[in-house]
Amino acid sequence: MGRIITIGREFGSGGREIGRRIADELHIAYYDSEILEEIVKKTPYSQEYIEEITQGRPISLFPIHYANSWGPVVDPHLQQAIDVYQEQANILRELADKSDCVIIGRCADYILRDRNPFRIFVYSDMKTKLARCHSREKEGEVLTDKQMIKRIRKIDKRRRQYYEFYTGQKWGARENYDLMINTANSDIKKVASVVAKLFG
Amino acid sequence: MGRIITIGREFGSGGREIGRRIADELHIAYYDSEILEEIVKKTPYSQEYIEEITQGRPISLFPIHYANSWGPVVDPHLQQAIDVYQEQANILRELADKSDCVIIGRCADYILRDRNPFRIFVYSDMKTKLARCHSREKEGEVLTDKQMIKRIRKIDKRRRQYYEFYTGQKWGARENYDLMINTANSDIKKVASVVAKLFG
Repeated sequence: MGRIITIGREFGSGGREIGRRIADELHIAYYDSEILEEIVKKTPYSQEYIEEITQGRPISLFPIHYANSWGPVVDPHLQQAIDVYQEQANILRELADKSDCVIIGRCADYILRDRNPFRIFVYSDMKTKLARCHSREKEGEVLTDKQMIKRIRKIDKRRRQYYEFYTGQKWGARENYDLMINTANSDIKKVASVVAKLFG
Repeated sequence: MGRIITIGREFGSGGREIGRRIADELHIAYYDSEILEEIVKKTPYSQEYIEEITQGRPISLFPIHYANSWGPVVDPHLQQAIDVYQEQANILRELADKSDCVIIGRCADYILRDRNPFRIFVYSDMKTKLARCHSREKEGEVLTDKQMIKRIRKIDKRRRQYYEFYTGQKWGARENYDLMINTANSDIKKVASVVAKLFG
């Protein structure tokens, strides 16, 4: 099996932790916010703006073929979003060529499909995600369960839209992944350590 | 983690082989057709008839609440199918109480849900399933790809209907499983051996 490992994940499911642990276990590179920093260097846009446009479908009224067509795209916001996506895709390809790695999110499973990545999707039930998110609240930030559930759903909705806009594939649908891990009844440390053995 | 392991699977995906290998690796019981033989002993029906009614939704025109209602069910075919399902559920509970085990199919994930089983779903792409099914054809049985695809789809359709009729849950939907394994790009032996380590 290849050692380009991509991780899609529901917000609060622990996907990032699993990715980090797999990378540590295998002594390979781990890319998450590092990619964002690279994009900031390579495009004229601010970090905040890039965060914004890489977290959701750019413009909800545009049909998907706009993003794939060769013709000129007139909407400047959409054009910027696509520019950033393209730049991100270039960076991901460069990183994947450089060394084995774990990449979190960013449609990496799709962008690197010709490199045959091992595509993991991590998910959980709401109870577990809620507990995880509450335990990670910053000091002074106290959300009710209801507020937190709303936030989790909103972030996942944007992830789904972003993924589906650029890939034309269904986010979290089993056919798009090699392994899908539910962290609801699992010991994340153990799961990560066991999954890493697939590549040992 | 518990060591009641249930395996749902697409036809031809290698789920049964993964289950068998996990059971071997862990030195625990493995139940598949053994369950069928038990039902034959405990009900007045023939093996062929039981095979028939445990491989699909019993009667397509009946709404699902019929199977769950306490009132008398008048259709004799439906009643027999439910009798067999209930007997099968009893047998599964007895087996799960007796020792750790791997159970293939038969809604075991749902029937044993109060025992907190580890629920695996195994799937693959059509190309891989096709190759696997062809390699297992009996002597003299030669299906074209088209015929084989039709057969695979038909069996999975019946599995889905059977599962959804009795459980009210969506077959193959990630929320109903703890781990979902795509065998399309995987070495089944290695995957089974690694997954078994989750329980070691």
